[in-house]
This record gives sequence, structure tokens and C-alpha cells, in this order.
Amino acid sequence: MSVKDLVRNELKQRVQVSSTRQRYVDPPNMISLAAGDPNFLLPDYIADAISAAIKGGCNHYCFGDEAELKEAISNYYSKYGYKAPPNLITITSGGNPSLNQAYAAILNAGDENITPDPSYGGGGGMMRYLSVKNVHAPMKKVNGLFRIDLEALKKAITPKTKSLYLDNPGNPSGAVFTKEELKGIADLAIDHNFFVVSDETYSEYVWDGHKHECLIAIPGMENRTLVCMAMTKMYSWAGMRTGWVITGPELAPYVASAPSGSVSWPIQKGAVKALTEGYEYVETIKKEYEERLDYATKRLNELPGIKCTKPEGAFYLFPDISGTGMTSQEFGEKLREEEAIRISGSMYGPGNAKGHIRLSMIVPLSYQKTPSWYEVTKDKTLESAMDRIEKFVKRHVK
Amino acid sequence: MSVKDLVRNELKQRVQVSSTRQRYVDPPNMISLAAGDPNFLLPDYIADAISAAIKGGCNHYCFGDEAELKEAISNYYSKYGYKAPPNLITITSGGNPSLNQAYAAILNAGDENITPDPSYGGGGGMMRYLSVKNVHAPMKKVNGLFRIDLEALKKAITPKTKSLYLDNPGNPSGAVFTKEELKGIADLAIDHNFFVVSDETYSEYVWDGHKHECLIAIPGMENRTLVCMAMTKMYSWAGMRTGWVITGPELAPYVASAPSGSVSWPIQKGAVKALTEGYEYVETIKKEYEERLDYATKRLNELPGIKCTKPEGAFYLFPDISGTGMTSQEFGEKLREEEAIRISGSMYGPGNAKGHIRLSMIVPLSYQKTPSWYEVTKDKTLESAMDRIEKFVKRHVK
Repeated sequence: MSVKDLVRNELKQRVQVSSTRQRYVDPPNMISLAAGDPNFLLPDYIADAISAAIKGGCNHYCFGDEAELKEAISNYYSKYGYKAPPNLITITSGGNPSLNQAYAAILNAGDENITPDPSYGGGGGMMRYLSVKNVHAPMKKVNGLFRIDLEALKKAITPKTKSLYLDNPGNPSGAVFTKEELKGIADLAIDHNFFVVSDETYSEYVWDGHKHECLIAIPGMENRTLVCMAMTKMYSWAGMRTGWVITGPELAPYVASAPSGSVSWPIQKGAVKALTEGYEYVETIKKEYEERLDYATKRLNELPGIKCTKPEGAFYLFPDISGTGMTSQEFGEKLREEEAIRISGSMYGPGNAKGHIRLSMIVPLSYQKTPSWYEVTKDKTLESAMDRIEKFVKRHVK
Repeated sequence: MSVKDLVRNELKQRVQVSSTRQRYVDPPNMISLAAGDPNFLLPDYIADAISAAIKGGCNHYCFGDEAELKEAISNYYSKYGYKAPPNLITITSGGNPSLNQAYAAILNAGDENITPDPSYGGGGGMMRYLSVKNVHAPMKKVNGLFRIDLEALKKAITPKTKSLYLDNPGNPSGAVFTKEELKGIADLAIDHNFFVVSDETYSEYVWDGHKHECLIAIPGMENRTLVCMAMTKMYSWAGMRTGWVITGPELAPYVASAPSGSVSWPIQKGAVKALTEGYEYVETIKKEYEERLDYATKRLNELPGIKCTKPEGAFYLFPDISGTGMTSQEFGEKLREEEAIRISGSMYGPGNAKGHIRLSMIVPLSYQKTPSWYEVTKDKTLESAMDRIEKFVKRHVK
């Protein structure tokens, strides 16, 4: 009997899929508009706080996680109008670990989760692992952005539905859901008795007067909502690994008790510093992203066959490229081969992502070249990328 | 329907158990001999390396984990006579996360794991979570230390046996398993077609000329062994969170693909520094532990009703206290109430731990008082603890 026969059932399929996936080697002039890894360095005071924590004894166990961090998260989140008691917050090691922890607390084998299409598929690995069926419900396009379609959601609900995934602000959809939209979702969750895994990773990035609203603040939703967040996007914290799950008093002990990775104590101390004193840094990043979004939206709308709406939130563009006559996969492959631009597209759902590509306003070259975050603002990388896309589209679309 | 009805089945029981567990508030003069959290500060060059990594851009994603760290681990482990290719090493966020990752790769619901009694129960939470039955097989006492009993293991094997947990050096047993003992275990694993989760957390701490041998180096065991390690104990790294799983080429992709927490990139960079340049620090710690073990063994053997054998490995004492007429639970509770000493005991297995207590040679007060690891050597804490135990035993045993 081979080792493969002995390993966990779900993994057999998963490893096979990953080993047959094609690997590309990037040419040296590649510009990636695919990544979700903010390309800013951290302010020096973060590294200094972490170094001081290590020298001060934070190499020791931190049972129950850093109380100051839970306090800082509670204060941070209260700006959205909901005050979570610190003891109901579970610290995780990032965005996907938050989703994994949330799903692990609530899903049994045979349960179903609903994921709107298109949206981020981060918890999919854990769902397969828990033998949970992930059902897609189409979103509807309103004024160029994908929004929740309550009728489509209703159709996807079965007696086995245990949870709904919701990313707000949406990735790649760009929608920031209104209080009214969230109320509609809450009514469904209460009527049909399911949880909502509310992925609020991009809450910091909301544009043009839109406002981030909290599902968990809606009456009846406190113990039905698992707010999953991370510092990855909001604080350029991808490799540092810090996230959290906020939920209500009935649900919190179950989230805290699910098996999880553990989070470095010195990094938690750095996160306290970032959340309590780092807002100027976040403001600088926000301004830069919005300039990039405005610039790229304008450039794209000048091209034949492309319609691009500036998102209400997050830092991705999700233009409709169906007018070019190419599928999103063709567009992505040719753009990579002919112009050395990497994008993502068809991975955000089986249906509605068709005819769209996702362009991240993170442009990865700059952070490798600059010594300090203060200097990381405009370089010519995004401009070059848009020039290449222009050349590409004008060559293919007559 | 309440939230509890909706959460994951396994967690209902688990949270209930934890909420009914009694919480003690330590008096200010409490000395804990229960902890496994090495009480040394880290050398400053670790904090400096981590700070430099953050300032240099390691706040970004590190996909596939830090290659330098895998290289450093491969080189480190080769001192035990087995050269693991770096690409077969999976980085984890510590000791329990290594066990969780290993079990998650191999165990399906309904499988059985065998755990020798007494031994560390770290993977138990994940096993319950995966609906795996954990079967205990008694160890046998030889010259005062608990060792693997192959006949008892054989009796515990069923057609559902998928894995054996083995801690080598043993916690709390103190045994360092010989090549011959490991060969006996390997024969069983090959004959009965199961994996061995080889927890080698304490490999650095082996005393009196004993030698740490590698199960994975035995012919036929490369793809049957999951070596689980962590820097927690070897490098006073508990709160930093770094560990790894080493296995063979057939098994490695499955371990790497199991859902896991993720490890901070700057901390990984610090771990490289520790593994490549930190051996002097480890030698200092080792010397200190051995002095504590020798001192405490001598003090305990002077007491009526107590028989204590110095362990071959790890930094725990596991004396037989049955001659005092108290059970290990009674001994532990009274010692805490009367003398403010915290120990652990009956949690290491259902049978063979009876009549024994575990005393950790980590004495937690000192690191809080000293500014630098160079100064953290002898203070009077262990001496005070042994004085209190002496008073306690002499009062109760006539």
C-alpha cells in the first residue's frame, strides 16, 4: 500500500491538482498586477517596538494572546460603530487563518456554505478539508459593480446551509455594502438559521464618501456573525501575520477553541503599536491607493472594448473586458506572454467573473527599490503597466 | 435553535469541559515547576536580526516559507545523522502546530492513533477534532524510566491504526530511545502499515553520554515518519512560534498542503540566525538545565517516600511519589495549597502516570528579574522550591 493510500482523503485530490498546475517563470521585466501584498515598507517604529518586545521577554508563551492587542482591536473596530468586548476577540495569524478558524468553529462534514459569485475564495481549502459543500450564488451587476442578489441567495439556501461568506468591501467586486443591503442579508440569516462569515479585510479602504457598515451591529446578528479581519491589507502586514475574529458571547468560546496556528507574541506587540499609533501611516497608504485607482480607471476607460467602474472599496479594479472579444483567461495569458503583465481573473467564481479581469493597484516593484516607506509613493511602474495594456488592447481590438 | 446547536460537533464537548475547569489564582509567592517555557531571555542579536528583516521588507508575503530557514533546519538536523532535503521540510508556528499539521495530513475520521502512556498529549485536541480515536498503550518502567513496551504496542494495534505518537526524548518519561528500540518500533510500523509522529522537541537535551537517534533514518521509515520539532524548548523560543515537520518525498506534499496557521517572515529570519549562529547560547542553557536536574534529583532522593531517577533526556523530573501514600493529584493539590508550588502530574496518560509527579526544571521567576540572558543562571528559586517540597514531604510522611 502506498503512502498516498494512507494520507487524508481530502489531500489526495488537492495535492494532485497542485502538482499538475502549470508553473510560469517570470521574465525580468514582468509587472504583476495580480498580488494582494501591499508594497509599502513599515515605519521603523514597528520594527523597534518588536525588537524591544523580544529584548523585554516576549520570547515566552503568551497564553490567551496579548490582552493589549485585544483591547486595541476592540478600540479600532469601534470606529465602525460596534464595540466588541476584548474577551470576545480571537487573535489569528492572518486573513486566511481567520477564515479557517471561523469555518473550523462552525462547519461539520455535510454542511453547506454559500459564496457569492464573484468573490474571494480564501476559505475554500478549509471547506474542502471539512467535507463541506461550497455553493455559489450569483451577484448582480448594478452601475458597473457586483452587489448581493437576495433572490439568488434565497435560491441557494437549503436545509444544510450553515453559513454565508460575505466580503465587505468586496474583492474583486469593489462594492461596499449599505446598511440596507446588510439588513437584507441579516433577515435571511435569522430566518434560515445560518451564520455569516463577514470578511472585512478591506474595511480601511472605502472611497468617495461610502461608509463601512457592520453586519454584527444589526440586532440579532451578534451571535450569527464571525467578523474576519487581518492587518495584511490595512497595514502592509502580509508577512507579519496578524488577524482576528470578532463574534458574540455565545459563539466566541467555540471560535477560540478551534485548533489553530499560533501567533508570535512580539509580532502581537508590534500590532498594538500599529493599531494605536499608526494611523498616519495608513492615511498615507490610502491616499496613494486612491490616486492609483483614479489614474488606472481613467486609462482603462480610454481603451476600446473595456469598461471600468471605480470601486467603492478595496484596491482592485475589476473591468469588463468582454468588448475586446477575448475571454478573461485569453486576455490574461496573452497579456502575460506579449507584454509581461501578470493579472488575475477567472478564479473569483464559476460564472460572474467571466469577461472580467482583476487588476491590483499594488505594484510590486517599488518596495524593492526604496529604503523607506516615506519615499514609496509614485514611481513609473503603474504608468508602464498601463502603457503596455494600452498597446496590447489597441493591437488586438480594431 | 441556539448557537451551540449550530457549532461544530466536536467543539460542543470541548468548550463545556473547559468552562467547567476550575481556575486557580496564584498567590504572589507561587513557584511554578509546571511550565515548559524556558526561562531565558534571547541574545540581543536575535531581536536585531528580526528588526533588520522587518526594515528590509520582510513585512511582505513569503510564499512557500523562507528558503534559508529550510536550509538551516536541514543542516541543523544533519547532526543527528540524517540529511533531510530542504524542500521536504514544512515550516510551522511551533510545537503543537507541528503535531496538528502532521495529524491533519494523515488522519481521517474513524482512524486510530496510539499514544504511549505516559507521554505528552499535545496532538489530542486535533485528534478529537478529526474524530480520531486516541488509544493508550502502557510503557514499561526500566531502571526508573518509562520505555516503549513493544508487546503492549502490538496489543493496541487494530486494522484502524493509522499512526503512533512517539516523544523522543520522552516527556515526562525522560527516556532517550536507543537505535534498537527505534528499530523495534519501525518493524511494527512497516509490518502493520502505520505512520509514526516522532515528536523530537527535546532532541537538544540529552544527558550523560546518551545520543539522540533518528527514527526517520531507519530503512523503510522515510515516508512513514513525520518528525515534529520546534524551537520552543531548544532555543527558549516559546512565544516566538517556530517549528517544522520533516518527512520523506512521498509524504511531504501532503503535510505541506494541510490547512495551517502561517509563520511570520521576520521571525523565520530570526530563526535562521538562531540555528546558524546561536549554538553558544544553547550550550549555556544546556549546562544550566543539567545542573538543575542534578541538584533537584539529589534533593528529592533525600526525602522519604520519593524515588527519583535522573532522566536521559529533556528537562523534567518524573519521580515516583507513591511511597508518600498520596496520589499524584492529592500531592499536587496539597503542595499548591500548603507550599505555593505548582506542578503537573496526572495529565500524561490514564494509567502509568499514577503515583508520579512532573517537575519542570524551568523556574519561571528568574527571567522576569534579569535584564540579559547572560545573567540568567542560578538564582535561589529552585533552591526555595526544593526547600518547600522537603518541608511538605517531611510533614506528611512519617
